Amino acid sequence: MRVIGIDPGLRHTGWGLIESVGSKLRHVANGVCHSEGETLAARLLSLHLQLAEVFRQHAPEAAAVEQTFVNRDGAGTLKLGQARGIAMLVPAQAGLEVGEYAPNAVKKSVVGVGHADKSQVAHMVRVHLPGVALAGPDAADALAVAICHVHHLQSGRHLAAALARAAAS
Amino acid sequence: MRVIGIDPGLRHTGWGLIESVGSKLRHVANGVCHSEGETLAARLLSLHLQLAEVFRQHAPEAAAVEQTFVNRDGAGTLKLGQARGIAMLVPAQAGLEVGEYAPNAVKKSVVGVGHADKSQVAHMVRVHLPGVALAGPDAADALAVAICHVHHLQSGRHLAAALARAAAS
Repeated sequence: MRVIGIDPGLRHTGWGLIESVGSKLRHVANGVCHSEGETLAARLLSLHLQLAEVFRQHAPEAAAVEQTFVNRDGAGTLKLGQARGIAMLVPAQAGLEVGEYAPNAVKKSVVGVGHADKSQVAHMVRVHLPGVALAGPDAADALAVAICHVHHLQSGRHLAAALARAAAS
Repeated sequence: MRVIGIDPGLRHTGWGLIESVGSKLRHVANGVCHSEGETLAARLLSLHLQLAEVFRQHAPEAAAVEQTFVNRDGAGTLKLGQARGIAMLVPAQAGLEVGEYAPNAVKKSVVGVGHADKSQVAHMVRVHLPGVALAGPDAADALAVAICHVHHLQSGRHLAAALARAAAS
């Protein structure tokens, strides 16, 4: 199963694709969408186009998006929310259910503790996916989201349901 | 010029279309998109489909979206932001620039004061657009956003720029 993880942000949205075969994980691709344009609408459109292109190229079968919010200020949270709306829309348009994980859940799943810093996350992503070349910290976070989603899908009936869906399609 | 105003929300997104001919305003249509689906991704997809259908049916030439944020809590602001991301994306996908107005600016433009309540806004929308049947408070707010955008476009060089664009297309 080919799984995409997305770490949304208005300026930089990281994405990472992995393939899980049995209990093994394999890196497929990772990158960062940099939104372009002078207005908010133009940047959201740019983000949508780039992320939709990633889906066209790589055809993921499952998707998950990090569930962040900025506590600092309402304006920052609103900006992030708008980018996150696009990050949720693209997999939904591709007919996928979208997993959502809080940053602590992702870190717990990948590093083993909920309060790891970015360099620890990147390190453990490299351990899980030997030989991976990371496009940057946002892409590393996105790969961590994908790994977390695979772990979640593999635990219990989530896997059974996903396999049944795959067999039926 | 056919102008759409949008009042975004995750559950209910109001929209309202007006036509400005010279200094006159005419109501075209208004409504509310109710997002459907059990998951956030499904609801964002539902919102995108409904709003894109409004654009297909009515082909607006200008668009504006209300610039709200909820101060109460980060989670509420994030939800609103995600819906607002879709509300900004749809006009951008239609090739339109998207005006953004804070609620106080909309009220000031339509009611004359920045601190009007919802019933005053609805009342003044009816005064600006005689005979309009409002689909609800969110649709009334959306029409107010459209009226505010027309006022803004009509003031000074914004109109000149818009007319030049229309003449060139």
